[in-house]
Amino acid sequence: MCRWLSYLGPETYFDRLLYEPQYSLVQQALAARKSISTTQGDGFGLGWYGDHPDPGLYREALPAWNDRNLRSLARQLRARLFFAHVRASTGTDTARSNCHPFAHDKWLFMHNGQIGGYARLRRRLEAKIPDALYPLRAGTTDSETAFYLLFRHDPDADPAAAIRAMLADIEAERLGASIDEPLRFTAALSDGRRIVAVRYASDDRPPSLYWREDDGAVIIVSEPLDGDGQRWNRVPRNHFLVTAPDQGVTLRPIAM
Amino acid sequence: MCRWLSYLGPETYFDRLLYEPQYSLVQQALAARKSISTTQGDGFGLGWYGDHPDPGLYREALPAWNDRNLRSLARQLRARLFFAHVRASTGTDTARSNCHPFAHDKWLFMHNGQIGGYARLRRRLEAKIPDALYPLRAGTTDSETAFYLLFRHDPDADPAAAIRAMLADIEAERLGASIDEPLRFTAALSDGRRIVAVRYASDDRPPSLYWREDDGAVIIVSEPLDGDGQRWNRVPRNHFLVTAPDQGVTLRPIAM
Amino acid sequence: MCRWLSYLGPETYFDRLLYEPQYSLVQQALAARKSISTTQGDGFGLGWYGDHPDPGLYREALPAWNDRNLRSLARQLRARLFFAHVRASTGTDTARSNCHPFAHDKWLFMHNGQIGGYARLRRRLEAKIPDALYPLRAGTTDSETAFYLLFRHDPDADPAAAIRAMLADIEAERLGASIDEPLRFTAALSDGRRIVAVRYASDDRPPSLYWREDDGAVIIVSEPLDGDGQRWNRVPRNHFLVTAPDQGVTLRPIAM
Amino acid sequence: MCRWLSYLGPETYFDRLLYEPQYSLVQQALAARKSISTTQGDGFGLGWYGDHPDPGLYREALPAWNDRNLRSLARQLRARLFFAHVRASTGTDTARSNCHPFAHDKWLFMHNGQIGGYARLRRRLEAKIPDALYPLRAGTTDSETAFYLLFRHDPDADPAAAIRAMLADIEAERLGASIDEPLRFTAALSDGRRIVAVRYASDDRPPSLYWREDDGAVIIVSEPLDGDGQRWNRVPRNHFLVTAPDQGVTLRPIAM
Repeated sequence: MCRWLSYLGPETYFDRLLYEPQYSLVQQALAARKSISTTQGDGFGLGWYGDHPDPGLYREALPAWNDRNLRSLARQLRARLFFAHVRASTGTDTARSNCHPFAHDKWLFMHNGQIGGYARLRRRLEAKIPDALYPLRAGTTDSETAFYLLFRHDPDADPAAAIRAMLADIEAERLGASIDEPLRFTAALSDGRRIVAVRYASDDRPPSLYWREDDGAVIIVSEPLDGDGQRWNRVPRNHFLVTAPDQGVTLRPIAM
Repeated sequence: MCRWLSYLGPETYFDRLLYEPQYSLVQQALAARKSISTTQGDGFGLGWYGDHPDPGLYREALPAWNDRNLRSLARQLRARLFFAHVRASTGTDTARSNCHPFAHDKWLFMHNGQIGGYARLRRRLEAKIPDALYPLRAGTTDSETAFYLLFRHDPDADPAAAIRAMLADIEAERLGASIDEPLRFTAALSDGRRIVAVRYASDDRPPSLYWREDDGAVIIVSEPLDGDGQRWNRVPRNHFLVTAPDQGVTLRPIAM
Repeated sequence: MCRWLSYLGPETYFDRLLYEPQYSLVQQALAARKSISTTQGDGFGLGWYGDHPDPGLYREALPAWNDRNLRSLARQLRARLFFAHVRASTGTDTARSNCHPFAHDKWLFMHNGQIGGYARLRRRLEAKIPDALYPLRAGTTDSETAFYLLFRHDPDADPAAAIRAMLADIEAERLGASIDEPLRFTAALSDGRRIVAVRYASDDRPPSLYWREDDGAVIIVSEPLDGDGQRWNRVPRNHFLVTAPDQGVTLRPIAM
Repeated sequence: MCRWLSYLGPETYFDRLLYEPQYSLVQQALAARKSISTTQGDGFGLGWYGDHPDPGLYREALPAWNDRNLRSLARQLRARLFFAHVRASTGTDTARSNCHPFAHDKWLFMHNGQIGGYARLRRRLEAKIPDALYPLRAGTTDSETAFYLLFRHDPDADPAAAIRAMLADIEAERLGASIDEPLRFTAALSDGRRIVAVRYASDDRPPSLYWREDDGAVIIVSEPLDGDGQRWNRVPRNHFLVTAPDQGVTLRPIAM
């Protein structure tokens, strides 16, 4: 299980969220409290929107906690919308191309969870990736495949609907292949303006997902960044969270 | 274009071929003489047969020339059959999983060249990988795909025939997709006992391939390891080279 | 705090100790049980004696647990004497040159612990490194400095005496600089034939150190490799452990 | 020999200089034209001044040419003053901490060249590093030592004078140790406002150094970025180049 963080709000330096909080994302990588795996040491990544429509990416296969580049970038860079992710591999290689977030065109995507039985599903799911995107895959994770499957469903028109359709694609293949292992999926997607986060599981154990609104900013996280439970709201199971500038947070169920 | 070396003979330390010759493989990585690209700095790999039927692998995304691990391993390890490869990426990521040799079961494989128009062929070729091997792919190179395509054709029964059939698979897809860019393919395959090397191109410019026999050893290389042209034999275009212990070298044309 | 393992006995494959035990060293890296830090993810290293008097080294800045090279080398390599180490940085960079073991000439050395107040002691201690070795330093750890300080005291004549004298050097400088932070030092040194391990602290909290003798092999570890506490002997505080082929284990106090 | 680039002018994206020119720095890394070594593949680094007085740093041990992080950062980041460097090791390890630029407080520094006989001079030169900076050294290059030696001479008061005094320190030690190998030193230093570059050699072969002024920007480079020799001015041997906003370029001899 991985850990991630997504921010939308007034321009802020990344280190305010990556290093300063009591249970910052980098601290969580060393010792996640609510996570199944003890360590998110299999790489990390940053994605952010700067001056261009396409996001910036910094991904690295080393653990986040001692990476001096990450510390320097987090101190220097600021944005109104950024993603950060620390990875605990569920089997695939430790490599930059398997680190989140993934980017394509103006889109950023990151994921925590697992597509159960992926070794048996991989061929079926990769076969569904649109032709134009098929050659772009740079890694071998279930997460990157899920990202490219989104583009079967016009995320520009309705990102949440595209996520739901992508999850339905995966569920159909799980059913077709008689996979028992669950699909667990907590993810964030952005087009540079709004963020759609999702908390889903085919069983009753979706990975955790929290959010808070604060000084005009929305922060969405796998785990609270501090011990003040009052400040953090849990995203309900099988729900979307949608946020855009000056529009607060909307929660709605995933109608699967 | 990459560079590689394959050895079969009396047990020898790897550094005798990787570091000591005038134009050793590590030296070639810095400044290949006959190669199109000037530098093979996008990773390297070693594969060898030790006590087990399955080969050992050491692959690294850093350039070979300053890798202290490679220097130490090359000094300590010895084998009767080993492969070494230095990589110049033709576009895919610099990552260990994209470095040669590739291993599966008892097999080792490495490649120099390029499947022309691979971005357009990738989907077609990956679709032909046998089901059992499909989930094993760890990287995204044309070379790894070619390796897994071999297993459509029972390399155990006849490794050269399997290579020929795999090249025919690729040529059929190139034709089907109306690809103009050539297929250029110089490769080595081993089951731990014998080595089959191949020099092929769909046009008249296959990558270079040389061999020499010396004190009971056969050395097959992309480029001669020294300036003594007399000692190195050129593998003819569109030919196989086959060698096994005490059986010298056999050359025969690829009947495509 | 780091974790390490040292083996002397009949030739054995490394994976028997690095991967197979219930609490193998690689498993410990993910979740050390008796250690202060939760994760040893800041690199690792292997050192072993093969055919040459000088040892082989494989060191890597990535975590041990997902390193495929380590898994392959541990399966292929065997030796009568080897060291393995997983690192949790106490502040210095994550880099291969800061990973243990350190090698010089025929010697191998690795360390767990910390030279308290090292930032203030570094200049004094580096100044004591013998001239011939001074240019050889490749990293910036207190451990590498301690290793080179050994050679002030002729380890060939008496390795334990050299370690004691080196610890005395450090203690003298700590006193001179009025350092309050303790010196904690658990280490192993080998010349390729015998191993001298040491468990020392200037306060009453030396890092843990255990050993067992089994089928003619001596295994010395930071933490037991399994839950069978009966099989593992604790090295007493401020003691040396010395072992050589067919000579079992000798424990004797450090006379500081 | 390394290659570097330094920019002062209107805010610009890094990729305009790192990727777009005909002989961009990244292109030079693959095949330097005027350089002794053929390849600068032993890591690279970026340093820039953003919102803080202290600079940002991104340094990596991999070759620059295939680093996707560098490509993304170069596209996203812009600054009025930045440094970029591609490294060809003259012997020390390939490691991030040995990559340029080096940063301390508000200062950035990078170097091309070599302190002849450094193995014999290292102890003498490191001994001259001020106490407060001694524990900060993270690598083992002659370049990092030279950087810390600057601070013996109050670079804030007069950066060029500090460089001259540092070079004189090194020359004094070379003389004291009877070193025949030359000191060759082309470097850039910045405090975030101005840049002082230097081209020096103890013999008559200083590394190359060029500059041009263009649309209010000053670009200082090891090698011209394009084939238009008319646009590039050579910095004379044993000269300083000083530039600050709206002050153009001043050249003056180093009075050693």
